[in-house]
Amino acid sequence: MPEAPFDWLDRHAEQRRRAGLSRTLRPRPADDPVLDLAGNDYLGLTHHPRVTRAAADAALRWGAGSTGSRLVTGTTALHGELEAELAALCGAEAALVFASGYAANLAAVSALTGPGTLIASDAANHASLIDGCRLSRAEKAVVPHADPEAFAKALAGHDGRAVAVTDSVFSVDGDAAPLAALAVVCREAGAGLLVDDAHGLGVLGEGGAGAVSAAGLAGSPDVVTTVTLSKSLGSQGGAVVGPARVIRHLVENARTFIFDTGLAPAAVGGALEALRVIREEPGRPVRTREVARELSERLASAGLLASTPDAAVVSVRAPSPEAALRWAERCREQGVAVGCFRPPSVPDGISRLRLTARADLTAAQVDAAVGVVVGTAPREPIGD
Amino acid sequence: MPEAPFDWLDRHAEQRRRAGLSRTLRPRPADDPVLDLAGNDYLGLTHHPRVTRAAADAALRWGAGSTGSRLVTGTTALHGELEAELAALCGAEAALVFASGYAANLAAVSALTGPGTLIASDAANHASLIDGCRLSRAEKAVVPHADPEAFAKALAGHDGRAVAVTDSVFSVDGDAAPLAALAVVCREAGAGLLVDDAHGLGVLGEGGAGAVSAAGLAGSPDVVTTVTLSKSLGSQGGAVVGPARVIRHLVENARTFIFDTGLAPAAVGGALEALRVIREEPGRPVRTREVARELSERLASAGLLASTPDAAVVSVRAPSPEAALRWAERCREQGVAVGCFRPPSVPDGISRLRLTARADLTAAQVDAAVGVVVGTAPREPIGD
Repeated sequence: MPEAPFDWLDRHAEQRRRAGLSRTLRPRPADDPVLDLAGNDYLGLTHHPRVTRAAADAALRWGAGSTGSRLVTGTTALHGELEAELAALCGAEAALVFASGYAANLAAVSALTGPGTLIASDAANHASLIDGCRLSRAEKAVVPHADPEAFAKALAGHDGRAVAVTDSVFSVDGDAAPLAALAVVCREAGAGLLVDDAHGLGVLGEGGAGAVSAAGLAGSPDVVTTVTLSKSLGSQGGAVVGPARVIRHLVENARTFIFDTGLAPAAVGGALEALRVIREEPGRPVRTREVARELSERLASAGLLASTPDAAVVSVRAPSPEAALRWAERCREQGVAVGCFRPPSVPDGISRLRLTARADLTAAQVDAAVGVVVGTAPREPIGD
Repeated sequence: MPEAPFDWLDRHAEQRRRAGLSRTLRPRPADDPVLDLAGNDYLGLTHHPRVTRAAADAALRWGAGSTGSRLVTGTTALHGELEAELAALCGAEAALVFASGYAANLAAVSALTGPGTLIASDAANHASLIDGCRLSRAEKAVVPHADPEAFAKALAGHDGRAVAVTDSVFSVDGDAAPLAALAVVCREAGAGLLVDDAHGLGVLGEGGAGAVSAAGLAGSPDVVTTVTLSKSLGSQGGAVVGPARVIRHLVENARTFIFDTGLAPAAVGGALEALRVIREEPGRPVRTREVARELSERLASAGLLASTPDAAVVSVRAPSPEAALRWAERCREQGVAVGCFRPPSVPDGISRLRLTARADLTAAQVDAAVGVVVGTAPREPIGD
């Protein structure tokens, strides 16, 4: 009997199971008692009463959806307000909101490059940037991680337009890209610089203005930033922030802008209120960074291979995918949720726990989290 | 002086302006008095009090965002409920919710194919399906529009896995794909069938179960359906609906599932309540189809080149991009919002007005809309 079209999926699943790489969804209850060090709610705004109230009010006033693509019916005045305030926070001319950060990255990478353009892309970049490169049909050079000289070398050989692409803060280890040095390299090579500041906005820079601002690059005509509304801003969606002509170009050309339904009003309203809370409470980003440093230092003191955080993310190495999974399970059993990153979510194949700092974690919660992560650590040696 | 990295964007914008292809965002107010025949709110549920209340309640109870990717913290029990009820409506084993329909299509196309697989893709497919093909690295055959024999021919020559990919209802002209015939072709060729039912769910099939169900293919082990939560369900997001092993495969492999933040609770709650309204009010899909047919017949009677709608979308040809834009502007001045589709949003380069039926349009509103569209029609001859 010939094989049916999707029979191969079962074999594939069995291979993943044997490699310890099965993944299962675990729906969480609304009143989850677990201490969350796994999410990306860096400023603790997802459940902030002002933010949830604004999201709810937006749904009631503007509807549960945006009804169409942004160029047809999907742009409300609320979208316009969010774009103006987001651009202001980042010190940029303009901003454009997308239904997700993934869509924003696909748009920025693919619409600002194309056949004949060289993209120099950091080896540890987020999946959405990599997919953007694939969609662009541009020439692509994957450059060793966080290495400005390697970027310079990659850009030097190219005759024509070029764009360097990098995360500002890398999701897995939480380390920062050398943005100021990259900007110098790009300027010398006549290349644009595209920065995904998903993990920097709200955490780094004066008042949470982000990594691009912290590197002194806010408002630069040659720098384009993508951000997410679903991490520090506690909501959903993404945005591109940069020169007005870049934004106009995306409105007229980016496929994930033109052919996607606009972001839902509730997400727009929630993110907008989050921006306002950040403006009024500039201590939040400072506190997030403090918590991250404290987590890292205390885990390292206990002998674990914890990364040194440049923003809100601390990673801790595990000896194997299976050990990482067991470790995360034991943390959860003891009331602490941590991320468990295994292949293919880790660029180097090394499995890790991923812990995230939140501005609203108390000293007692940090104590509890450290105690649980250290107390449940695997006894096998953890290589480096 | 050498050109700066993004100087070319201005030249590009000028070319678009000269070709009559500039696009501008027009933020709409909350209390927009315009009669909307441009959005995709086919069942009139975006502003339904039960749906907006459910969206608001979800934001208040679950937070403004989902806090992380679905496999880490971004799956709430509410996501699970929506997935179960969506699968039930479509008569499928399982469903998986994504942050957008675009993301669902990228996931389904790219994760169910790959190098060595042949994708036979309808020439008029949506941008997100085309981008999914690009990301997949599969072999690709673009097949003449809505032509089962052409699909059969494309699939016949291929030795190895194959998937046929089609919209169920095409966005621009509102015509339906010959799904039952395509399924026969795929079965004979041993190929899977992937259907984007964005414009069919909620409009076609018994109780709005969609085009796949209407074609007698619900629950088929070889058929995978993608849907959107942002059209008939009045909310935001997308989903893949199909065999359980397909859903499991996507959970473990699809990049836009693994590396994207989960859909915000408000969008999940809104879509879930919309599903329940549809179940209780099976007359809504019927009414939407009636309104579409009436719009088409009355526009055609007045001498316009209106498409014959298979679902909720009616397109009307315009003599040029500029004429289409002026026509849509004049409709808006007279209180009726219609879509204006120009290159590159039209696969054949022919500019059109795009009108959408809604279940909640009254007879008087249909009268008014027809009057305005006919009364503002260009005097230039409209070619075919």
